[in-house]
Amino acid sequence: MSYQPSPADKFSFGLWTVANRGRDPFGEPVRDVLSPVDAVKMLGDIGAWGVNLHDNDLVPIDATASERDKIVKDFKQALGDHKVVVPMATVSLFTDPIFKDGAFTANDPKVRRYAVQKTMGAMDLGAELGAKIFVLWGGREGTETDACRRADEAVKRLREAIDWLCEYSLEKGYGYRFALEAKPNEPRGDIYMATTGNYLGLIPTLAHPEMVGVNPEVAHETMAGLNFMHAVAQAHEAGKLFHIDLNDQNPGRYDQDFRFGAANPRNAFFLVKFLEDVGYDGPRHFDAHAYRSEDYDGVKHFAIGCMRTYLILKEKAARFNADADIQGILSKLGSDKPGAGKFSKSAAQTLVAEQFDRKTIAARGLDYERLDQLTTEILLGVR
Amino acid sequence: MSYQPSPADKFSFGLWTVANRGRDPFGEPVRDVLSPVDAVKMLGDIGAWGVNLHDNDLVPIDATASERDKIVKDFKQALGDHKVVVPMATVSLFTDPIFKDGAFTANDPKVRRYAVQKTMGAMDLGAELGAKIFVLWGGREGTETDACRRADEAVKRLREAIDWLCEYSLEKGYGYRFALEAKPNEPRGDIYMATTGNYLGLIPTLAHPEMVGVNPEVAHETMAGLNFMHAVAQAHEAGKLFHIDLNDQNPGRYDQDFRFGAANPRNAFFLVKFLEDVGYDGPRHFDAHAYRSEDYDGVKHFAIGCMRTYLILKEKAARFNADADIQGILSKLGSDKPGAGKFSKSAAQTLVAEQFDRKTIAARGLDYERLDQLTTEILLGVR
Amino acid sequence: MSYQPSPADKFSFGLWTVANRGRDPFGEPVRDVLSPVDAVKMLGDIGAWGVNLHDNDLVPIDATASERDKIVKDFKQALGDHKVVVPMATVSLFTDPIFKDGAFTANDPKVRRYAVQKTMGAMDLGAELGAKIFVLWGGREGTETDACRRADEAVKRLREAIDWLCEYSLEKGYGYRFALEAKPNEPRGDIYMATTGNYLGLIPTLAHPEMVGVNPEVAHETMAGLNFMHAVAQAHEAGKLFHIDLNDQNPGRYDQDFRFGAANPRNAFFLVKFLEDVGYDGPRHFDAHAYRSEDYDGVKHFAIGCMRTYLILKEKAARFNADADIQGILSKLGSDKPGAGKFSKSAAQTLVAEQFDRKTIAARGLDYERLDQLTTEILLGVR
Amino acid sequence: MSYQPSPADKFSFGLWTVANRGRDPFGEPVRDVLSPVDAVKMLGDIGAWGVNLHDNDLVPIDATASERDKIVKDFKQALGDHKVVVPMATVSLFTDPIFKDGAFTANDPKVRRYAVQKTMGAMDLGAELGAKIFVLWGGREGTETDACRRADEAVKRLREAIDWLCEYSLEKGYGYRFALEAKPNEPRGDIYMATTGNYLGLIPTLAHPEMVGVNPEVAHETMAGLNFMHAVAQAHEAGKLFHIDLNDQNPGRYDQDFRFGAANPRNAFFLVKFLEDVGYDGPRHFDAHAYRSEDYDGVKHFAIGCMRTYLILKEKAARFNADADIQGILSKLGSDKPGAGKFSKSAAQTLVAEQFDRKTIAARGLDYERLDQLTTEILLGVR
Repeated sequence: MSYQPSPADKFSFGLWTVANRGRDPFGEPVRDVLSPVDAVKMLGDIGAWGVNLHDNDLVPIDATASERDKIVKDFKQALGDHKVVVPMATVSLFTDPIFKDGAFTANDPKVRRYAVQKTMGAMDLGAELGAKIFVLWGGREGTETDACRRADEAVKRLREAIDWLCEYSLEKGYGYRFALEAKPNEPRGDIYMATTGNYLGLIPTLAHPEMVGVNPEVAHETMAGLNFMHAVAQAHEAGKLFHIDLNDQNPGRYDQDFRFGAANPRNAFFLVKFLEDVGYDGPRHFDAHAYRSEDYDGVKHFAIGCMRTYLILKEKAARFNADADIQGILSKLGSDKPGAGKFSKSAAQTLVAEQFDRKTIAARGLDYERLDQLTTEILLGVR
Repeated sequence: MSYQPSPADKFSFGLWTVANRGRDPFGEPVRDVLSPVDAVKMLGDIGAWGVNLHDNDLVPIDATASERDKIVKDFKQALGDHKVVVPMATVSLFTDPIFKDGAFTANDPKVRRYAVQKTMGAMDLGAELGAKIFVLWGGREGTETDACRRADEAVKRLREAIDWLCEYSLEKGYGYRFALEAKPNEPRGDIYMATTGNYLGLIPTLAHPEMVGVNPEVAHETMAGLNFMHAVAQAHEAGKLFHIDLNDQNPGRYDQDFRFGAANPRNAFFLVKFLEDVGYDGPRHFDAHAYRSEDYDGVKHFAIGCMRTYLILKEKAARFNADADIQGILSKLGSDKPGAGKFSKSAAQTLVAEQFDRKTIAARGLDYERLDQLTTEILLGVR
Repeated sequence: MSYQPSPADKFSFGLWTVANRGRDPFGEPVRDVLSPVDAVKMLGDIGAWGVNLHDNDLVPIDATASERDKIVKDFKQALGDHKVVVPMATVSLFTDPIFKDGAFTANDPKVRRYAVQKTMGAMDLGAELGAKIFVLWGGREGTETDACRRADEAVKRLREAIDWLCEYSLEKGYGYRFALEAKPNEPRGDIYMATTGNYLGLIPTLAHPEMVGVNPEVAHETMAGLNFMHAVAQAHEAGKLFHIDLNDQNPGRYDQDFRFGAANPRNAFFLVKFLEDVGYDGPRHFDAHAYRSEDYDGVKHFAIGCMRTYLILKEKAARFNADADIQGILSKLGSDKPGAGKFSKSAAQTLVAEQFDRKTIAARGLDYERLDQLTTEILLGVR
Repeated sequence: MSYQPSPADKFSFGLWTVANRGRDPFGEPVRDVLSPVDAVKMLGDIGAWGVNLHDNDLVPIDATASERDKIVKDFKQALGDHKVVVPMATVSLFTDPIFKDGAFTANDPKVRRYAVQKTMGAMDLGAELGAKIFVLWGGREGTETDACRRADEAVKRLREAIDWLCEYSLEKGYGYRFALEAKPNEPRGDIYMATTGNYLGLIPTLAHPEMVGVNPEVAHETMAGLNFMHAVAQAHEAGKLFHIDLNDQNPGRYDQDFRFGAANPRNAFFLVKFLEDVGYDGPRHFDAHAYRSEDYDGVKHFAIGCMRTYLILKEKAARFNADADIQGILSKLGSDKPGAGKFSKSAAQTLVAEQFDRKTIAARGLDYERLDQLTTEILLGVR
């Protein structure tokens, strides 16, 4: 197997990922600026399909209208030259100091208004570049002290902003689907809408729930030690998996954004298997960045590695599905047989009368250790 | 202040809390059996309002019908004698070995059917005792290896069971409101529906979403290091806070179920403040248990401590709301002024044209350190 | 490759691992009792080299002297029949309710005395069975409330007990080496000596530091989200790696004791690589247990899986060491060249005068992304 | 109580704490530069006793010798003017890109040499300012991929550097005591010497163990969910508590460095109580920074809050010690009576013969729930 990416794989990277300069809370940047045009070239060279961007990844926050237009024109040229598309756009509501208390949920109403204005601009930009997915990550929608506002008020403010933006997309005919991205903490002490589940709970309360889904990120769910694939599965089952951010992370620590599969390849395997099994057909977006030890040659290897590991795991998922011993264990369980089914008065009467031999049912060994060991051996390539 | 509980406080305890015998994964029970009747007596003596129960807390899983009726009769007598009510009932879908692979989501269809049957019985029991809230905690709805089933299939099975149970309540005229309780892991490697948010996301996909809300638990959300109060606030704002489990927990470890406020009184303060500020009027249920170092006299002190700490923090919440310096900081923020508001074409045009002086807005100090220190000093009782 | 274990691999299991009955805080046992003799038979059948035990895994706490002798005799017979040795013994200072406040550090002096007496008995038993390593895991040496004792007093009590036990071993001529096992929490709220590092710090303060080392356990260090291999490396470098407990665990949760390599095979790989690279020649002890979904046939597969995965990873470690691309990256770093070396006045003068071109040194890419991707591909068996 | 700090409290702050500009991984600085001289003025104004510094907090890394001397002269003037001392100095081995792979443990020998040279310069600077404690925090001594070096090699390199620096201090007659500061992760994926315990284990293997102790930090130990006070107690008991970094942190997340007591006042209470009970007489150093929401007026309130909370908790510790009910529970335990004591052949014979009534001893309730509730009520100021 060559593990070469193709456009059908829909592999995308954020401008901010390959152009990440390696600054962290304790150290200065280690890499020079990589221009958006050069980033697109790099992505084209390595076979990526798409590039995503925050407004200010491309256009500086202080750019004039004409500067903006020049930048956008050059960028489009690069996209065409390198056969890279822009499937998704987003907005930075966290970098500028004005957002120090959040954006849509900030206590200062001017900040809330500015955040919406800025997002509209980012939507304009994304639409101009062809994006049909708009991600909203409320990077600073949170608190260090909950004395500062009532937490239900924050939910209301968030809803107000999202409802506005949906209307704006409709009014402009942009055709956006919004994908909400959760994160439990960092850079704020705690972030509202900590998990993908919280957003799945918010969406039905919006004015246009049909336009809004989620953008789960491996690192964000894993920071809280949660099983990321389970969250993805719930989102998919609800028809809300609009986008996905792939990277890697060890639980219980800062947002690491490692190369896909670099922290725990087993978790990555179950994720890829799920996405492939259900036929997820959205972008596979790598929201990761290279170690600070790397120069841009290393960044390139980092990006290639993300895609290779996905393809390697995809092949293993197919192997799992074709493995007779594994399928034997799974089919033996009879799990496809019906449970209680749909309620009716008579079905209930039948069920109440049913006798269960608890001890016998309980005593049955389920063979999950063998199942998991076989899975491990497929993962490790010895089967 | 006396910090004496009254029925208006709606303090309740599970039978399984005060009767907890102190068994853990590494040690044998340290306390003898406390009968349900004696537990009710203890709760009445210390001024608790309610007692909750799993079916098998009261009626052994192997009891005959007549044994059951005798037990229930004696228990009702005790409730009357000690002026204790049963606001909530629930079902054990985790203790018996039959549930080793889960209950509603188990691979064995017989187990799924049995789980529904058993829950119907627990609903009958709860209704007989006057309960109007039925909690569902899927203690073992999860996995150690995700090779064993597709995670979206588990969501479907869960929905099927809850839909059935809603219909059963309607058919029987029980008037139940169901409260779904999330937990991220333990006793399973990972549990589906890991956070309160996940359940808020599931509910709108049910056949009877209006009958179903959540039962957030301090320890369960805190195990994943999440801000519990934020989850409670989202649930409340969505009209879904049907019940609440109060206890305490340090993040990132086993389910500790400590006395309310015992691990982090600051978090407990913000929680009590939220519940009181929004006028939450459901039960304050303590789902905790005493340290293993205690005899039943210690258990009593444990239960009294839960209620005292709640009342102490409630008083502090009132003090916070009445503190002129604190309210001065909060009102100075002007956060009650409108943000972008409701979208209209003209409102959007106005907003697009609005000028924001980013630097000036950003430079404003928000006084949150002082706000938080004042809060701390109220909490510590020196203000 | 067959991945068949041989005695030279020194694979051992605790009696309590394969005989684990699957009880957990929320559920009853799922497997019947497996006798020590049958456990030894199972271990012999699957090719394990050794079996370890707590005193009460073999001899019930209430056994009479003659019952004990009969049990020991039968057990020795089984050891001989199945060619299984006892490399390590330990003591249960946590199961019986008497240890609810700890053992060596308990506040009740009678408990402290009993704990030492019981440990002496366990040492006698281990010596009789041929064990030369004695593990001390202070399962309950901790607190739920730090109000109960001064934490430095606990350190003193711990030292007193260990010093006594070293003397007892010397006096009896048992030739034991003690291996201290750390754990951060569970079943106590917090456990003193939370990490392997804490024990490495305690040992030099003992009366017989030369007799005492550590027994790091994957799950225990990983519960706190720490890099287990780093702790093992420090212990080894200090000559203190007397024993090791292999299993697997996801960070930030209850003690899972999963099959070796089942949670994160990448971490397991770096661990096996370290042990093999440094020529660790002690037991490879699997302190794990099968999922609760299993019968004893599943337990057997679980135990076989532990050993297979170790051997698979050992083969991969050799492949890593032989990989020319990997070794090329590593040798390019020049890391074997000397740093500052040993201090002398003249060496210091030389160093102070040395000029460093910070920018050039910093700009060099270290190729760690490629290095890690190559490692990943070896791990996944595609290289 | 006024809770006003006095020099006897030995409250110190790092230059980097009050001058922290609020940059984080996702956002730009929110505060302008605060010069070292102005920082000293602020600290003097609010009653702090000391100021600590990394070399480059005061002297830019590219400063010429004459620039350096001018800066130092002005700084000394400010120290004198505002009656602030420099008890501790340290070195930045993490900010400059040259340290991207670590400093003392970096693979590039030039980096290792430069790190030692730079530390010698920082020691010169600290000595000139009167510091007698030198803290070493190996901010980047770690890995993202353990493929890059053997972890025991890192320990050896670390030892080599510390041994050199001890010799340098001796040769120069600086009289330094070195305090080693652990951290589990961030900014590196994993940091060697993850906990205070790891350093306590390293120290006895150094050439000059008597010169080297530890500098535990609340946030660093708490990130891993460990009980910080326990680590402090072990260090103190070993005579190795040379310095301490006070701040606050929620477990399992990025390094928050919150105002002392702001995350969990209960943990802060037990810490202050321990320090005061044992008569710790070193600096109480606040290694924290203000929220990003603050201007420099907010920073001032932040710093005042750190000191006030310490003094409030100190008062509560005295109240705990004077509380008759609490002391009654503690003395009832009889924990001051001897355990097994010192081993002798006859003492062992006596102990072996001793009879213990396990059930009776185990049945005794220890009253820890009441003890903890009383402690809570002291903490909350209602007792």
